[in-house]
Amino acid sequence: MLNKMSSYFVRTLREDPVEAEVDSHKLLVRAGYIRRAAPGIYTWLPLGLKVLRNIENIVREEMDRIGGQELQFPLLLPREPYEATNRWEEFGPSLFKLKDRKEGDYLLAPTHEEMFTLIVKDLYSSYKDLPVLLYQIKEKYRDEARPRAGIIRGREFVMKDLYSFDLTDEGLAHSYQLNRGAYRRVYTRLGLDFVICQAMSGAMGGSASEEFLFPCEIGEDTFVKSPGGYAANAEAVTTPVPDAIPFDDAPEAKVLPTPDSTTIETLVAQANKLYPREDRPWEATDTLKNVVVVAQQPDGSSEVLVVGVPGNREVDMKRLEAALAPAEVRMAEPEDLKAYPDLVPGYIGPQVIGPNSPRRTVDEEGHIAGSPRYLLDPRVVSGTRWITGANEEGMHVFNLVAGRDFEADGTVEAAEVLPGDPAPDGSGPLTLERGIEIGHIFALGRKYAKALGLTVLDENGKAQVVTMGSYGIGVSRLVAAVAENSHDDKGLIWPVNVAPFQVHVLATGKDSEVFEVAEKLARELEDAGVSVLYDDRPKASAGVKFKDAELMGMPYLLVVGKGLAEGKVEIRDRKAGTAEDVAPDAVVTALVERIKGELEKTALARTSTELVGEPDQWELDQGEEGME
Amino acid sequence: MLNKMSSYFVRTLREDPVEAEVDSHKLLVRAGYIRRAAPGIYTWLPLGLKVLRNIENIVREEMDRIGGQELQFPLLLPREPYEATNRWEEFGPSLFKLKDRKEGDYLLAPTHEEMFTLIVKDLYSSYKDLPVLLYQIKEKYRDEARPRAGIIRGREFVMKDLYSFDLTDEGLAHSYQLNRGAYRRVYTRLGLDFVICQAMSGAMGGSASEEFLFPCEIGEDTFVKSPGGYAANAEAVTTPVPDAIPFDDAPEAKVLPTPDSTTIETLVAQANKLYPREDRPWEATDTLKNVVVVAQQPDGSSEVLVVGVPGNREVDMKRLEAALAPAEVRMAEPEDLKAYPDLVPGYIGPQVIGPNSPRRTVDEEGHIAGSPRYLLDPRVVSGTRWITGANEEGMHVFNLVAGRDFEADGTVEAAEVLPGDPAPDGSGPLTLERGIEIGHIFALGRKYAKALGLTVLDENGKAQVVTMGSYGIGVSRLVAAVAENSHDDKGLIWPVNVAPFQVHVLATGKDSEVFEVAEKLARELEDAGVSVLYDDRPKASAGVKFKDAELMGMPYLLVVGKGLAEGKVEIRDRKAGTAEDVAPDAVVTALVERIKGELEKTALARTSTELVGEPDQWELDQGEEGME
Repeated sequence: MLNKMSSYFVRTLREDPVEAEVDSHKLLVRAGYIRRAAPGIYTWLPLGLKVLRNIENIVREEMDRIGGQELQFPLLLPREPYEATNRWEEFGPSLFKLKDRKEGDYLLAPTHEEMFTLIVKDLYSSYKDLPVLLYQIKEKYRDEARPRAGIIRGREFVMKDLYSFDLTDEGLAHSYQLNRGAYRRVYTRLGLDFVICQAMSGAMGGSASEEFLFPCEIGEDTFVKSPGGYAANAEAVTTPVPDAIPFDDAPEAKVLPTPDSTTIETLVAQANKLYPREDRPWEATDTLKNVVVVAQQPDGSSEVLVVGVPGNREVDMKRLEAALAPAEVRMAEPEDLKAYPDLVPGYIGPQVIGPNSPRRTVDEEGHIAGSPRYLLDPRVVSGTRWITGANEEGMHVFNLVAGRDFEADGTVEAAEVLPGDPAPDGSGPLTLERGIEIGHIFALGRKYAKALGLTVLDENGKAQVVTMGSYGIGVSRLVAAVAENSHDDKGLIWPVNVAPFQVHVLATGKDSEVFEVAEKLARELEDAGVSVLYDDRPKASAGVKFKDAELMGMPYLLVVGKGLAEGKVEIRDRKAGTAEDVAPDAVVTALVERIKGELEKTALARTSTELVGEPDQWELDQGEEGME
Repeated sequence: MLNKMSSYFVRTLREDPVEAEVDSHKLLVRAGYIRRAAPGIYTWLPLGLKVLRNIENIVREEMDRIGGQELQFPLLLPREPYEATNRWEEFGPSLFKLKDRKEGDYLLAPTHEEMFTLIVKDLYSSYKDLPVLLYQIKEKYRDEARPRAGIIRGREFVMKDLYSFDLTDEGLAHSYQLNRGAYRRVYTRLGLDFVICQAMSGAMGGSASEEFLFPCEIGEDTFVKSPGGYAANAEAVTTPVPDAIPFDDAPEAKVLPTPDSTTIETLVAQANKLYPREDRPWEATDTLKNVVVVAQQPDGSSEVLVVGVPGNREVDMKRLEAALAPAEVRMAEPEDLKAYPDLVPGYIGPQVIGPNSPRRTVDEEGHIAGSPRYLLDPRVVSGTRWITGANEEGMHVFNLVAGRDFEADGTVEAAEVLPGDPAPDGSGPLTLERGIEIGHIFALGRKYAKALGLTVLDENGKAQVVTMGSYGIGVSRLVAAVAENSHDDKGLIWPVNVAPFQVHVLATGKDSEVFEVAEKLARELEDAGVSVLYDDRPKASAGVKFKDAELMGMPYLLVVGKGLAEGKVEIRDRKAGTAEDVAPDAVVTALVERIKGELEKTALARTSTELVGEPDQWELDQGEEGME
């Protein structure tokens, strides 16, 4: 059945939706692909659903290619398995929980490690059964505190999650590489650049994890790269710890008045004017900023913490949160400080916090009370000297030496990463970029198998705990990522293998022959296996039709209009922006060939010799860099 | 990638699962298609998922064929639209409700009338936009009090739901017939018999509805048929009301002792012995049985009711519940009767209940109190005379005449339908059968459009409320229905268009040549477009392989074994039970032809002249009987 604009369930909007911040969101709504049903929850209109399915199928092909077997778990899950792994609590408020009519506890699946582990435990029992790769493509639910950017961070979203089960660590490393290769192929086929970054494991746990980030200014992840090939999510960057400095000759600490020094800049300026340092001018890096935050655990308990970072850096809340996972972290409010009268906002210093606090008590079991815990940036090593708050309005303390004059309860990776910071592996200075997380792979190890008792008998008949990997792609997010990657100010520009329709046929003008020929060509294209949307609207102007077509973003436009009288129809290439006149009886073949060519470039390659693109982006698991 | 049993994620079970009652459930679990994750909630293993997808695709083809456009709504939905139609309350405890982190109310979609109505309201505004048919194939959630029979009645299940939107009643009638025709084609293609039954509308509301029932002994629905073509769900059968009888000459009512008459049979026997009737013997149809039930409304409020039915019939709780929808109904417990001391269990009679109760009060607003409401079978018309309880242990009242000696608060269709009962349309005596509901279509009318404000401008620029139809198929239930329809004591027998794999290749014995040839043939079949599962297990005996293959139910088995030495392999037809020797180099062609033939028989027919089967089962919308 030919899809015609006159009856296709789509309406384009001229105005950006008020809630939309990023281009992909604006365009997907305006062009009639998605509609918001609730915050972070979207309806897929017919056009959007086609794109989602096309991307799903590419992901499915690559999972099948590495031997993945597809199954499907429920979305409504019982509490017990998540209780066994402690995630019923650990997921905290991001887990949608509910009760059934018998008061049984259920949850909406946020991720399925538990279910996959249990199904393998149910079916398999021998080392001979392994390895096995199982996956599903299915909705997931996370009650994000801040759903944003349309389908980029939703509360209901479609995810492909694959899990590998191996007997040995080497087996896991192999499965991990298989999946890593499959991910590279998925993104390459979608035309998406990607950077493989070291990542934090977050709520998944496990020993190693990498993220695939699509570099993109509107991405909410910051990642770093070094000239030597290091790449990591900013959350996962570790600070090289400097050597301790002997402090025998360090000057004595002095509390001094610093009137009107409300920022690090004014403080440094005033310090250099009033109390110049003996060897060189004071710099922002000599100041120690102490920031009060509240970490809320999934069980609802919360703790006030003070985080100390060099004054030239902000506290990066995402890094801090990653370091304190699974807690959620926010800046402290005046209300939170009431219990700690020593903390003078703007002048908080280490002498009255952490282990140095005169109010600190530690009971026999080691429980700390009376003062907040104090966590320091790893750069604040023993012997470093600082200008920092004196816990008194208008006063700072100078030459306060770490290890001599103050201590902390521990270190924390909370300071923002700055361009030029050294890579932790010594591979050079870091540059910073933003990106959208389009995949995340985890070498989980034996955590889930242990918690849920998944063992198999080895060659000697001995029970061995299975080791697992977990590999996720946000399939609905990929729709947005492809849209971000490929659009202009007129609208979307879909790759041929993703587009809801490959050709948008436009009949322009009022000549009935134009409409007849346009419909005939549309049908011939369909018969040739090309997917077609035919704009048959009798009253819409050519301008309206072009505008809609450009907004909706099919890769090829076939325009049948007044040129027809001279034996010409027009092929427009939405991406190249080119237009070309072709004879009506040659246009079907011309389009079929172009489309076939495009599809072949991005098709599932069956053997490595057929692979397309940079060889190292396609190789399955040979010669790739190993897991770091 | 060739699917091999040695690594395919399946394990068969020799024993029936303890919780399984019906064959389809037992076999789907034993053969490795599904696993229970929670009561009424199932995991689709790889084999099961393939069957589900195959059925989904047949349904999708038929929806597309009538012009249905597929989209997809979220499963997690906000409360507001369901509040507007009152269904947030009406669904009662069968609705899964939950709160998000901001205490917002959400539900898991039980059905999507509201969302479809709102999306049409969002996109469309003119009569020219109509009609439109929109559908999705997606999970639904209903917290059934009694999930049963595996995926036949689950709490999470996959449904195809299509909605039609029309300006006029005639438009709706046409859309209804389009869908009715599509349903006939879906079931015919799946090889399922079906009976189109008049049905109750239940929680959907609307003016007319029909159910498609697959006749099947384990079905939980009872339906009736008459020789004249009447068919209805037993819930929807109405009782022809007899004429009233003059009672001037009726004998006086008398309370008489009836010792040891604890059943209708003993009561009738004793009545005939002790108090014979003047004109003929007493029969069970002369007794009036009064049954106490509790109807619980969705808002949690409940009411004790007495239902009076002729003693030869049981109260059919499903009919009663359908009549009292949306209330849920249960038999009263002794606890429920405490408030009504007049009701003597076993001897309840109409003289102290309903309007006849001396305790009955009615306030100014018509609210009834003091005695339970009394609802009578429609056969209990004025002038009928009865033996019934005298509200005293061991006593019955004789010749109690309706309209003279007692009254009720109303009538109710609660008595069971018995074989031989007259069809309400006069088309003859009814026969009863059981069936599984495999589809339900509703002419909803304007209820939802009104509640949610869906109007379009008509030709005169005047706003008109749109009229809707709703058409549902339980897609996951169809998997069970097809399995019920097609199995034997050895296992499942899938139709070719539904089977997870079309050919199950078995290599039997230990000869390495057997395995080589089997794998070669399996690959050749795959290259010819046939889906294949290859049992390559080196150590499993031929017996185990045959047992597994028969249990798993692929339509064709290709057995490569010791016959190979004589140049023979064997094709087994699982359904026909036949076996045939074929030369190895002829077997691929032979199988491809059979499979092609089977698929063509059940394929999507593009024009009526290509249609297969009984013509009246295929015609689109011409010449079908209209909506009753």
